[in-house]
Amino acid sequence: MKRISILGSTGSIGRSTLSVVEQFPDRFTVVALAAGNNIDLLEEQVRRFSPAVVSVSGEAQAGLLKKRLGDVNVRIFSGLEGMIQVAAADDADITVSAIVGTAGLVPTMAAIRAGKQVALANKEVLVTAGELVMAESRSRGAALFPVDSEHSAIFQCLQAGASKDVRRLILTASGGPFRTYSRKDLEAVTPAQALKHPNWSMGKKITIDSATLMNKGLEVIEARWLFGIPPEKIKVLVHPQSIVHSMVEYQDGAVVAQLGMPDMKGPISYALTYPERLADVSPALDLARVGALTFEEPDTDRFPCLTYAFDALKAGGTMPAVLSAANEVAVGYFLEGKIAYGDIARVIRSTMDAHTQTPVRTVEDALRADLWARGEAERIIAECGITLHSR
Amino acid sequence: MKRISILGSTGSIGRSTLSVVEQFPDRFTVVALAAGNNIDLLEEQVRRFSPAVVSVSGEAQAGLLKKRLGDVNVRIFSGLEGMIQVAAADDADITVSAIVGTAGLVPTMAAIRAGKQVALANKEVLVTAGELVMAESRSRGAALFPVDSEHSAIFQCLQAGASKDVRRLILTASGGPFRTYSRKDLEAVTPAQALKHPNWSMGKKITIDSATLMNKGLEVIEARWLFGIPPEKIKVLVHPQSIVHSMVEYQDGAVVAQLGMPDMKGPISYALTYPERLADVSPALDLARVGALTFEEPDTDRFPCLTYAFDALKAGGTMPAVLSAANEVAVGYFLEGKIAYGDIARVIRSTMDAHTQTPVRTVEDALRADLWARGEAERIIAECGITLHSR
Repeated sequence: MKRISILGSTGSIGRSTLSVVEQFPDRFTVVALAAGNNIDLLEEQVRRFSPAVVSVSGEAQAGLLKKRLGDVNVRIFSGLEGMIQVAAADDADITVSAIVGTAGLVPTMAAIRAGKQVALANKEVLVTAGELVMAESRSRGAALFPVDSEHSAIFQCLQAGASKDVRRLILTASGGPFRTYSRKDLEAVTPAQALKHPNWSMGKKITIDSATLMNKGLEVIEARWLFGIPPEKIKVLVHPQSIVHSMVEYQDGAVVAQLGMPDMKGPISYALTYPERLADVSPALDLARVGALTFEEPDTDRFPCLTYAFDALKAGGTMPAVLSAANEVAVGYFLEGKIAYGDIARVIRSTMDAHTQTPVRTVEDALRADLWARGEAERIIAECGITLHSR
Repeated sequence: MKRISILGSTGSIGRSTLSVVEQFPDRFTVVALAAGNNIDLLEEQVRRFSPAVVSVSGEAQAGLLKKRLGDVNVRIFSGLEGMIQVAAADDADITVSAIVGTAGLVPTMAAIRAGKQVALANKEVLVTAGELVMAESRSRGAALFPVDSEHSAIFQCLQAGASKDVRRLILTASGGPFRTYSRKDLEAVTPAQALKHPNWSMGKKITIDSATLMNKGLEVIEARWLFGIPPEKIKVLVHPQSIVHSMVEYQDGAVVAQLGMPDMKGPISYALTYPERLADVSPALDLARVGALTFEEPDTDRFPCLTYAFDALKAGGTMPAVLSAANEVAVGYFLEGKIAYGDIARVIRSTMDAHTQTPVRTVEDALRADLWARGEAERIIAECGITLHSR
């Protein structure tokens, strides 16, 4: 019986995790849940999974939840302190880190410091503080398991050989909805067009990141830290069908790939039960029905965000945090119709150009760089609104 | 330094093995070589690799070789006894079993009985006596490593999970040169057409087997024993590009595949150095250049040999040996232009129908069934020559 704590239980990954728990009641028990403002769903989850500890975003929500759950034996916390209580819950074996954004960084670090295994779905943890987080994970003996389908694929493919024999990690990218658009057409893209992802149903921000290939850029940064592989050994390959979730090329020339239907329950359950695999978690893949898998090089002229991510990784220190924060601000403005699609990359580039990276020695260093970049990106958009091709 | 013995050193696999040895002189040394009649090449190999023991097919060749190698310190044997000397050479760590046909069975068994690791390239060893050979391998602690690209791929993919979590092995098949031919067109196929394999340059017999899909059928039988997986969990998928060498589907829905350029040195070196991987053995795979990988179900109506192989496996005992021997006879007649392409399957089916399987308790049981099937296949061809659609 594995005891699970979930940071972000009402989000997409959190709900999928609980659906895995429901499918295998003999294997898992839920000991702690942290959510944001979705009190209704959290109440339901508490009644169904009986965690000992829960946390919500603020004191008001905590008060409301306490009233509603007066008949249930559960300790209710709030805010960052509450998230940390959940992340490091005494009897948890593994913490699922699925809070979106830099908000996930401190509680995830708390889970690692408490020696918990971590199933990591949050991107910013490794993008903003990867080196620090991995060092902490090693020194505490707290294993990190990827939940992202690409990183889970690589993690699986790495079982087929020794780290020293790896030539390259090959991250596959769907290429997004604008894979075939010309540079000119890209400028005129609308949020509505960008939100139509061909293969995966995801949140708005990540869907735009998928369109710009920034999502893949952030995954490159994550992979660099998660697997201890230098940037020059990480390659991105466009694969529109999203069936090959990623690959590892070994030095003998063998390429090991992990394939499957697009589905989050597979990677989640693998992170929870590695090295074991549970039965019938993901739908079966029928390759004869899929017919063809295609591959092409990414076009970094049309999708410069991918290059910026590699640049940030090579610059090191706080630069990846700046890349990620500037992107988040720019995507927000784009979704509100306030800047053009092409401006997203320009805002990121300008913010990075204005930044001199410093080492990330503490979580605070990463958070400070994140905050600075948000301010800088806002400033760039406000000041250069017209030169950025906004509509 | 790994000490290698090679059964079949002048054949295609033997020569590729020696080319791997030459590429990594610090890793391998050759202690014994067995060849057939190619004395010229064997002499060259002896001078280059300095084995302590060699063997040739007959006493005449041995005498000739002794004369030619009078200046070299090497013990020279011949016949079955010689092959066994090479297979079980005192100081060998691993024996490469690359003699074609049932002739490989006795020496391979001798290597296993001597506790050698075996890099297995011979098909008949597992097709005719798989259960027996695997039991012997287990009881002697003599590991068997596959050299076939498909089985090597599956062996690699199996590193990514536990045996108990395997749902299916998926063997890929190029589909051969007649993949798109109609049933009628297939009847008129000539040996010359059949010998044009799209992706691999191989011997004549295996090229015809690849056209009829019998090659894949024999590989299914090998996989069944090598990996201890029941026939109903082995699937064949047609993949004309031969880039995905095979796959393992796990019960969670994840499919792990091994890909690479068609090349034998990769599987050979992996068998010799598992779990390590040597650098730059096979050419690098460029998936963007390959472009598309396609998959389709095999058509067992047009390619019945695949079904017959599954039938033989399910019947068990001596039936797979009968299938393989009847096939070898029929392919020989087809290559000589004496029976039609479609007759190959008919001869196999008739031979199998005339056979009642008995258990294979000894190597002799397998060899006896093999001999019986050859006689029966010859008889069928002689007696029914006209009803078989020969030209």
